[in-house]
Amino acid sequence: MERKMLLASGALLLGFAFETPLWADEAQAIRTLDASWTKAAGQKDAPATAAYYAENGVLLPPNSPIVKGRAKIQEVWASFMGKPGFMLHFDPTQIVVSRSKDLAYDIGTYELTINDDHGQPMHEVGKYLVTWKKDKGSWKVMADMFSADK
Amino acid sequence: MERKMLLASGALLLGFAFETPLWADEAQAIRTLDASWTKAAGQKDAPATAAYYAENGVLLPPNSPIVKGRAKIQEVWASFMGKPGFMLHFDPTQIVVSRSKDLAYDIGTYELTINDDHGQPMHEVGKYLVTWKKDKGSWKVMADMFSADK
Repeated sequence: MERKMLLASGALLLGFAFETPLWADEAQAIRTLDASWTKAAGQKDAPATAAYYAENGVLLPPNSPIVKGRAKIQEVWASFMGKPGFMLHFDPTQIVVSRSKDLAYDIGTYELTINDDHGQPMHEVGKYLVTWKKDKGSWKVMADMFSADK
Repeated sequence: MERKMLLASGALLLGFAFETPLWADEAQAIRTLDASWTKAAGQKDAPATAAYYAENGVLLPPNSPIVKGRAKIQEVWASFMGKPGFMLHFDPTQIVVSRSKDLAYDIGTYELTINDDHGQPMHEVGKYLVTWKKDKGSWKVMADMFSADK
């Protein structure tokens, strides 16, 4: 009896030891992707920035129709990054992963600077919602939506 | 041998019969929720509209900071619905569910009408991204983001 209980509590401990870090690992994987993604965007590298999206991913920008597919998304990023004074940084504030670890979303904030018509830097603070899907072992962005706070 | 194969193919058939509709069922459940949700919104029923959000759900409107929690979200809907000439309808175009059926997102379009300052109806077409989480057996909106197409 005592041995059975020991075994049971051992299994429970193992369960915790394996379950919790695996969960956290997936959120951490997305956090790490966000960090390298914002770096690529900040460096105005459109191909590297677009590489985070799934082949059939979509971008949903404010005051613009939905942009479908990685190739078109790369064009939008390239045009965006080409604007004078472009600077961008974003950070996740919440990452939620499904139990099956194949679907996730993250919410975060961004800071964007672009020059206005007089060459003066215009600062914008906003928020984003991104959904992720695991494909062949790696997380890819399925949908990316953002808008200004003001 | 023959009997074993028969049993195996029976199990396979059962597998298909149960698996596929269960997958589809979850997407259908969200489609049905979307249909009643847009009806509640169209009828300017703020409490019924807010009831689709999780207690800790968030709304990410354009040109406005993130709105946190069902109570605050209901206030935003009530104020929005109070605008003269308010009419709203939205429809999902894509629903993606995790294998564990606890997380999902849907992308769709909306049509909104609100009167301008001269009392003339202003028509807006836009898109949305909504994430859902299953809590105690029912799907609730975790994050709701939308913006105009133009």
